[in-house]
Amino acid sequence: MEVWFTERQTDAVSIGLKVKAVLWRERTPYQELAVVDTEAYGRTLVLDGAIQTTERDEYVYHEMIAQVPLAVHPHPRRVAVIGGGDGGAIREILRHPEVEEAHLVEIDERVVEVAQRFFPEIAVGLTDDRTRLHFTDGIAWAREARDFDVILVDSTDPVGPAQGLFTPDFYRTLYEALAPDGIMVAQSESPFLQPELLRQIVQGVRQHFPITRVYLATIPTYPSGLWSFTWGSKRQDPEAVPEMVGEWAQSLRYWTPAVHRAAFCLPPFVQELIDA
Amino acid sequence: MEVWFTERQTDAVSIGLKVKAVLWRERTPYQELAVVDTEAYGRTLVLDGAIQTTERDEYVYHEMIAQVPLAVHPHPRRVAVIGGGDGGAIREILRHPEVEEAHLVEIDERVVEVAQRFFPEIAVGLTDDRTRLHFTDGIAWAREARDFDVILVDSTDPVGPAQGLFTPDFYRTLYEALAPDGIMVAQSESPFLQPELLRQIVQGVRQHFPITRVYLATIPTYPSGLWSFTWGSKRQDPEAVPEMVGEWAQSLRYWTPAVHRAAFCLPPFVQELIDA
Repeated sequence: MEVWFTERQTDAVSIGLKVKAVLWRERTPYQELAVVDTEAYGRTLVLDGAIQTTERDEYVYHEMIAQVPLAVHPHPRRVAVIGGGDGGAIREILRHPEVEEAHLVEIDERVVEVAQRFFPEIAVGLTDDRTRLHFTDGIAWAREARDFDVILVDSTDPVGPAQGLFTPDFYRTLYEALAPDGIMVAQSESPFLQPELLRQIVQGVRQHFPITRVYLATIPTYPSGLWSFTWGSKRQDPEAVPEMVGEWAQSLRYWTPAVHRAAFCLPPFVQELIDA
Repeated sequence: MEVWFTERQTDAVSIGLKVKAVLWRERTPYQELAVVDTEAYGRTLVLDGAIQTTERDEYVYHEMIAQVPLAVHPHPRRVAVIGGGDGGAIREILRHPEVEEAHLVEIDERVVEVAQRFFPEIAVGLTDDRTRLHFTDGIAWAREARDFDVILVDSTDPVGPAQGLFTPDFYRTLYEALAPDGIMVAQSESPFLQPELLRQIVQGVRQHFPITRVYLATIPTYPSGLWSFTWGSKRQDPEAVPEMVGEWAQSLRYWTPAVHRAAFCLPPFVQELIDA
């Protein structure tokens, strides 16, 4: 007998992964949470039926959401992740010895607990001395936050609890929570399958951040594989990554200074989408 | 009622596309050939159950297999495509006014006929004065070929008729078919899902071509989305693309000089795979 997990990535596109075992399944106060062990991608975290992360390709997403701003920021001391309860972005942040505080703001405590149990290599940083966990709404938390160097919006898709994380108002809140050298990066969905959403995010960030850019990475288990991130900064140039980087970069599997700069070279079909 | 087309991309990964209509289905002497109209990607050409090209994402593959070598070659006059019966690579080649002959070497004449009927925008160049059609085996054809400037190996996966197109012997044949400035590019599958195959292709090309490189593009309907191409040249530097390119590049949707150079910036997980 074969068991397959199928995610409807859109109304008209699905991905199927052959399943070795369904390891966990529960309804939390916020969403359906499952862990599925798949043949191709290893353990897979699924929220409301949508793949969030897998053991085999998680490094692409986590390195690219975190290392792009952290490599550019001259002294990232106070960093926050909104969403990202699996801990992958926190792990990447903690590679940087200058980081003094890594805040995780996750509305659903169960995501953190399940990640620590089933994804120890992703969640590894969640018990670090520098990590501060906040189980609360990201918008409310951000309104009180000040003087952050980097804030990452590592959200689920804009349905359910994450909806407010995709509004221009929220980007203004982040602007105010950031120090003058501050940088925000938000995951901004697929230019192929969610072009309107990407366009809205870019327009929202641009209303508040003088420097707004989009960069790309390929994440096999996300819709279309082509994934976008939107960068907003007050004065940091996103491509100003030093050619020589510290020891923290040595064990990365996707990010390099060259890959960093390459990620900002957009195909015309993406450039036209965000210029429109 | 919903109808879905499902491709098993590997034993453990599938893609599903919602179907508006099955437009064509036949068994040719070489393979099963089908055309499916899908909601998300438009018309889709399927050979032996595997997606070859779709109306909505075909430009990524066709621009990247063809424009990367053609932008670098100083005077691409005689160009050949082995496989590629849909005509997309030929269309890209014919954008270059210097091209005098564009040879298509396709074993299955039915692919060309069906492409002309169902994919007129992809097959547009197949009736051009400069196009020469050869319905024959690519290996036998290449043994007699000489003085080509660029040869593209636009093959199906290495099962069935395409198997011989993935051997070191075939790369030697291509080396001999190319002029001293000659360049070959072969599609070389997914670094995520077919890593061993990519490694073999690179090793095979390296046995004969002093300059062997890999570059990447994201193609949503191909397994994992991350697709590789392997470049072999006698003396052309693959990154030596002029900053100012001709009018031929104006209507492209994926390739630009910056995207060209970015495509050669490999993540460490790909670099380690091909260095091993």
